[in-house]
Amino acid sequence: MVLSMFFIFLVGTAGSGKSLLTASLEKWLVGSDLSVTVVNLDPGVESPPYTSDVDIREYVDYGEVMRTFGLGPNGALVASLDMAVGHVDDLREEIIETERDYVLVDCPGQMELFAYRNSGPLMVSGLRGDDPAVSLYLLDSNIARTATGYLSSMLLGVSINIRFGLPQQSLLSKPDILTEDEVEEIVQWGEEVYLLGDALDQSADGLVREYSKSILEMLENLDTVTGTIPVSAKNMTGFDILYGELQRVFSGGDNLYE
Amino acid sequence: MVLSMFFIFLVGTAGSGKSLLTASLEKWLVGSDLSVTVVNLDPGVESPPYTSDVDIREYVDYGEVMRTFGLGPNGALVASLDMAVGHVDDLREEIIETERDYVLVDCPGQMELFAYRNSGPLMVSGLRGDDPAVSLYLLDSNIARTATGYLSSMLLGVSINIRFGLPQQSLLSKPDILTEDEVEEIVQWGEEVYLLGDALDQSADGLVREYSKSILEMLENLDTVTGTIPVSAKNMTGFDILYGELQRVFSGGDNLYE
Repeated sequence: MVLSMFFIFLVGTAGSGKSLLTASLEKWLVGSDLSVTVVNLDPGVESPPYTSDVDIREYVDYGEVMRTFGLGPNGALVASLDMAVGHVDDLREEIIETERDYVLVDCPGQMELFAYRNSGPLMVSGLRGDDPAVSLYLLDSNIARTATGYLSSMLLGVSINIRFGLPQQSLLSKPDILTEDEVEEIVQWGEEVYLLGDALDQSADGLVREYSKSILEMLENLDTVTGTIPVSAKNMTGFDILYGELQRVFSGGDNLYE
Repeated sequence: MVLSMFFIFLVGTAGSGKSLLTASLEKWLVGSDLSVTVVNLDPGVESPPYTSDVDIREYVDYGEVMRTFGLGPNGALVASLDMAVGHVDDLREEIIETERDYVLVDCPGQMELFAYRNSGPLMVSGLRGDDPAVSLYLLDSNIARTATGYLSSMLLGVSINIRFGLPQQSLLSKPDILTEDEVEEIVQWGEEVYLLGDALDQSADGLVREYSKSILEMLENLDTVTGTIPVSAKNMTGFDILYGELQRVFSGGDNLYE
């Protein structure tokens, strides 16, 4: 009998690799003899790289919303998500009925239309109920490869963390497009904030240099800056470290940041 | 003879009201006997609420990109922006030839696909060249009405500021959907950071309360937290205050944050 399910929400900017990571994390967990339910929350996705067990598309028809209300792609996505909030109890019931160990929730491709609207946070809290939950924030390696890009990605991560209010773990997504040295440097920026400061001093221009000290202090105080885990869906690497971190969160209250 | 043109980039999340504000700011400036060039940077927009003088759609055909490469709405937008970067010199030349006082640049609807990709910052720096420039960051009144929403919006604003590296002014967009008291409260959060702290103490839950002190300190140090100007495109209010702020930026070096 399953006493509680562990909810994992995958969030990140469009193109950061959420759906592929959902697919590969499912594969890894199942390969470790754990049972997994995969939830697709993107009304507009055509063929995600996994077989969803629970799917928002069964409740709202994005194409029909577009046609019926004469909306463009963005407007239709927003309207679909707003409409789906009314079905959040049904979605949760479907999830509960699967009686699995883990629930992977692949959030909509455009984070902006999900996180910074009221429907996104409502959907997240409605789905997880009182079950333990964590969000995985994907940093896109294309952006995080420079110190300035990393800094702006971390700020965006804190902003999203506040929107959803869940313990949050940062992942470096698609590290396979970087060299090993680059990946190592990014991981170190997360472990020792002064190294990020040094990198910013060397590469950043006026405004970022002026801001960096205050931002670095904040990141250090929040402790979110520690532990960006590189996880490659392509090479199936990093999942053991991620799993260890998830265990730490789910076993120790739901508190990633203490 | 025009010695230099003043560039104003309008940025904000999808639905925050960039295009409408572009239209009304043009109207206000022209009504004050200033000459204005309006630039549309959204390849996917169908009928913006203004007549653009320079338009990215003359260089890239979003619909054709979709069909030719078999891309969905997001992928086509990303590809169109990437392709348009190759035309940034032509766009700038067109702008220069108009010989106007102000250049209003309406940035793509989905900030996420613009700010957090390499093409966005490249486009911004290529367009403005060495001319004075400022970015106007629109806070959506739907989000900023709560203290927690305001805090996450300000963090997002700092992240965007770092991406573009321009002096940045925060605007409260669509204040006409709020009561006067609500607008006043939001403005005060920007002027006295302790008032925002008080509001967070009263309304926020565990994680935000834990984070708020460090984030507020950062915002206070950056000075970006001061002066969120409510500007209503619908009621044509707030433009005089915004104009005064722009004058201050453009006349005093390009430094909003000192």
